[in-house]
Amino acid sequence: MATPKENSKQKNQWKKNLHDIIFEADTKAGKLFDIILMFMIIISVAVVLLDSVIPIHMKYGGLLLLLEWGITVVFSIEYLLRIVSTKKVKNYIFSFYGIIDFLAILPTYLSLILAGSHYLAILRILRLMRIFRVLKLARYIGASRYLILSIKESRHKIAVFLWVVTLIVVIMGSLMYLIEGPENGFNSIPRSLYWAIVTLTTVGYGDIAPSTFMGQTLASIIMITGYSIIAVPTGMVTAELIKLGSKKLNTQVCSYCNKGNHEDDAKFCKYCGTEL
Amino acid sequence: MATPKENSKQKNQWKKNLHDIIFEADTKAGKLFDIILMFMIIISVAVVLLDSVIPIHMKYGGLLLLLEWGITVVFSIEYLLRIVSTKKVKNYIFSFYGIIDFLAILPTYLSLILAGSHYLAILRILRLMRIFRVLKLARYIGASRYLILSIKESRHKIAVFLWVVTLIVVIMGSLMYLIEGPENGFNSIPRSLYWAIVTLTTVGYGDIAPSTFMGQTLASIIMITGYSIIAVPTGMVTAELIKLGSKKLNTQVCSYCNKGNHEDDAKFCKYCGTEL
Amino acid sequence: MATPKENSKQKNQWKKNLHDIIFEADTKAGKLFDIILMFMIIISVAVVLLDSVIPIHMKYGGLLLLLEWGITVVFSIEYLLRIVSTKKVKNYIFSFYGIIDFLAILPTYLSLILAGSHYLAILRILRLMRIFRVLKLARYIGASRYLILSIKESRHKIAVFLWVVTLIVVIMGSLMYLIEGPENGFNSIPRSLYWAIVTLTTVGYGDIAPSTFMGQTLASIIMITGYSIIAVPTGMVTAELIKLGSKKLNTQVCSYCNKGNHEDDAKFCKYCGTEL
Amino acid sequence: MATPKENSKQKNQWKKNLHDIIFEADTKAGKLFDIILMFMIIISVAVVLLDSVIPIHMKYGGLLLLLEWGITVVFSIEYLLRIVSTKKVKNYIFSFYGIIDFLAILPTYLSLILAGSHYLAILRILRLMRIFRVLKLARYIGASRYLILSIKESRHKIAVFLWVVTLIVVIMGSLMYLIEGPENGFNSIPRSLYWAIVTLTTVGYGDIAPSTFMGQTLASIIMITGYSIIAVPTGMVTAELIKLGSKKLNTQVCSYCNKGNHEDDAKFCKYCGTEL
Repeated sequence: MATPKENSKQKNQWKKNLHDIIFEADTKAGKLFDIILMFMIIISVAVVLLDSVIPIHMKYGGLLLLLEWGITVVFSIEYLLRIVSTKKVKNYIFSFYGIIDFLAILPTYLSLILAGSHYLAILRILRLMRIFRVLKLARYIGASRYLILSIKESRHKIAVFLWVVTLIVVIMGSLMYLIEGPENGFNSIPRSLYWAIVTLTTVGYGDIAPSTFMGQTLASIIMITGYSIIAVPTGMVTAELIKLGSKKLNTQVCSYCNKGNHEDDAKFCKYCGTEL
Repeated sequence: MATPKENSKQKNQWKKNLHDIIFEADTKAGKLFDIILMFMIIISVAVVLLDSVIPIHMKYGGLLLLLEWGITVVFSIEYLLRIVSTKKVKNYIFSFYGIIDFLAILPTYLSLILAGSHYLAILRILRLMRIFRVLKLARYIGASRYLILSIKESRHKIAVFLWVVTLIVVIMGSLMYLIEGPENGFNSIPRSLYWAIVTLTTVGYGDIAPSTFMGQTLASIIMITGYSIIAVPTGMVTAELIKLGSKKLNTQVCSYCNKGNHEDDAKFCKYCGTEL
Repeated sequence: MATPKENSKQKNQWKKNLHDIIFEADTKAGKLFDIILMFMIIISVAVVLLDSVIPIHMKYGGLLLLLEWGITVVFSIEYLLRIVSTKKVKNYIFSFYGIIDFLAILPTYLSLILAGSHYLAILRILRLMRIFRVLKLARYIGASRYLILSIKESRHKIAVFLWVVTLIVVIMGSLMYLIEGPENGFNSIPRSLYWAIVTLTTVGYGDIAPSTFMGQTLASIIMITGYSIIAVPTGMVTAELIKLGSKKLNTQVCSYCNKGNHEDDAKFCKYCGTEL
Repeated sequence: MATPKENSKQKNQWKKNLHDIIFEADTKAGKLFDIILMFMIIISVAVVLLDSVIPIHMKYGGLLLLLEWGITVVFSIEYLLRIVSTKKVKNYIFSFYGIIDFLAILPTYLSLILAGSHYLAILRILRLMRIFRVLKLARYIGASRYLILSIKESRHKIAVFLWVVTLIVVIMGSLMYLIEGPENGFNSIPRSLYWAIVTLTTVGYGDIAPSTFMGQTLASIIMITGYSIIAVPTGMVTAELIKLGSKKLNTQVCSYCNKGNHEDDAKFCKYCGTEL
């Protein structure tokens, strides 16, 4: 017969195993769990996409609703398992992924409550909110942390770049409003700024385009500027990536405080001291 | 009772404190001053933008005019304080920021004088000039000096790049005028050059597009060229940023000569020797 | 009179010479063989392109068919020679180039069999499959291995980048569907996603464009995002290319196992030990 | 009285001085000569541009013709002076700049001969050829040699890149022709390839755009590919520029063999040994 201490240890062991399966991808069972879940996420996003196409909604609306409920049930079970297997429940619930997991199941249940109501706009928004399930996938992109890090490192420079872009857009857009005027489609400064962004970023829809000689000259300057300053964010990120290139990150997550970013040779969580 | 010398010292101290608040962001009062001013600048730009939308001008024109005057008064006080707190007034007034600060208040006062006149075009330009207030923000983007430096360093290479772009645009645009001709919208060489810029920079409005086989072939060459040579400014800026990456700059400005760009450990202005 | 061993050696020598001519570009005959083949490939692709232009097909259809058969015969002979001159035939047949060489001759023969049939759609696809002959050229681009290597090295980072792009497209596209709605051309989420890709990649056809103020604001955010994150793949590839820059690759291919990627000073295949 | 030897030396000195003024920018007179010439080139290009705008041609045609002749005379004198001051005349005449200088004056004289003829198309081409005068400016862009060098160094990689682009365009364009077909504007493979280039390079005119679901999906793949592979030339050029970054080039040109690219401390031409 197990002593209470052993019992508690056993229980903890069970919890630890579950945690390993659900939160990490190092074991076989954990990998399988992840693959099934990824598959479910992709299907659930596909359901939302297809449901928005009117002819498909007409023909397969019932089937899609059934799939929707099936997925919601699976995600609800996943959410509960995650809560059960985490040592510090609050840390999970209020973490980025905890909120995403919750928001992934909320809309379907809410739509049940509001089904009879007349708040069609709200229902429409709820239905669309399900698309955010795509964020659940973020968990499986191990290297995203690497990317986030290099963006964090260059955030000051990115801010400066956005500021320069804003400056060019505001000044050039306003000048364009003065030059072309409402008779050529530039009927307010905000609309002129929209055009300046479309041009500077080299998107160029062509819904608004300059037609006077002066306007086309100014537009040419904006285009060449936009074409040249694209170099700036590229240079920043490149310089940052070259610097970060040698650092190594792994995918382990602490079972107590749920934080990641541990070194490969770390045996204990560097934030709370729990064994990994 | 203070001796005249102490009196003068006290007065200088008071001026120095004001200078610290207004020109630097190292003290608490200085930070607050900056935040309030940034807020005012953003509002003032928003007022100009909204005022240009005809329905909004119709409905809220009076309110926007009131806001406009409030902002102008605040910026006028700021301008005077900046003049008072600088030791060498001329250096401030004719500096980049001094001119910007003056231009930020000028249009509103000028519009008062010209209010009764019939120079509507001038009034329209004056109203738009207020958009340049956005440049006042430049002061708060500490790192912009870093960007300006790396652009300065690669200005020769940028000139070469612009020259190559000009060459391609002039030659390809002229050829296109010969191939497509006025019947397909390429009705003059300047217009052909405009099209070449739109294409080379990958903007592609689609307001003018080649329709003959020869024209589309030439256009394809321009597109692939444009798509490839975007690499050149990017490479230049990247190489420059990697080189400059280790240098450090700070935000202190000399109270005597108003020049910035001081090292972090500098205690005296390197341009005039005044203590920072 | 030659002994059987010498005979076999002679035969092997003959095979080796053929292998050198056909698979490598180090000898004069090998270079000539390559140039003739490249010329044939380019002509064969041109034939397919021209045949699809209806007026040309009307006028020169017979001539193009003749050329088509001539090219097919040449490619068939080349295919047989390649099989004969390789020591381990299976390695060649199931290699990337072996499959390409087979697919380059298959469609023409198949179209002969299906000529009388009514499967026009299949015939159309067959005719188009001949365009894949362009892949035969891959053999002559020595440095492509260098490119493939640097893409392979950064495939994890590229996956992360594509994932971020997907995320932005799905979330922004769905929001746009909510904001603009079917009345402005955003009549389903898949169509909204298509628009988001067109905008994020700065292509900007202009076939679908936002027309409400909210929509244009969101579009501006997507454009600036797309304009900025183009820096990420660029940074990755640059960092990788700088790292790989010093490595050297050569064009020798083993006559036994048909594998490439050998060092310049290698005298034996590093995969099977055969002399190069 | 000067001995024949001194006489010849004097003559050589005079030639050398002229060579310094015309071919180099190190002396004051040389700089002035260059600035005047640059000014003339810009005016001559402006004349061609303006002459192509029909309303301007109608009104100022006579004045522009006068300017045209004035410029031609100046350029003719410049051409003769260059021939006289070079030691090895043939080297100059058949050099890149020699040909450009000749082509800059040829069209105007030829148009005189052909004035009475009915070869309007040839006259039109001749008139346009004058635009190539813009190439005369190349001489004054000292750093272009630096750019040409870094492009030369990466020409193999650029070839590979262009090959990959061709591959994607041919395969994707052909597939699109199969999917969308003539009923959606993709009426031949060449036209499909043109569309693929417009899309891959992110230009996106919108004159041809996919309208089926399959077509839009394939288009999305092309766009994201194009958006990502822009990284490749950028990476190449960046890596090359970083490598070349430390090298220094100067603007001296040998008076005997007319070759440039000399080191800063070179006293003799490294190609023919003449003193610089």
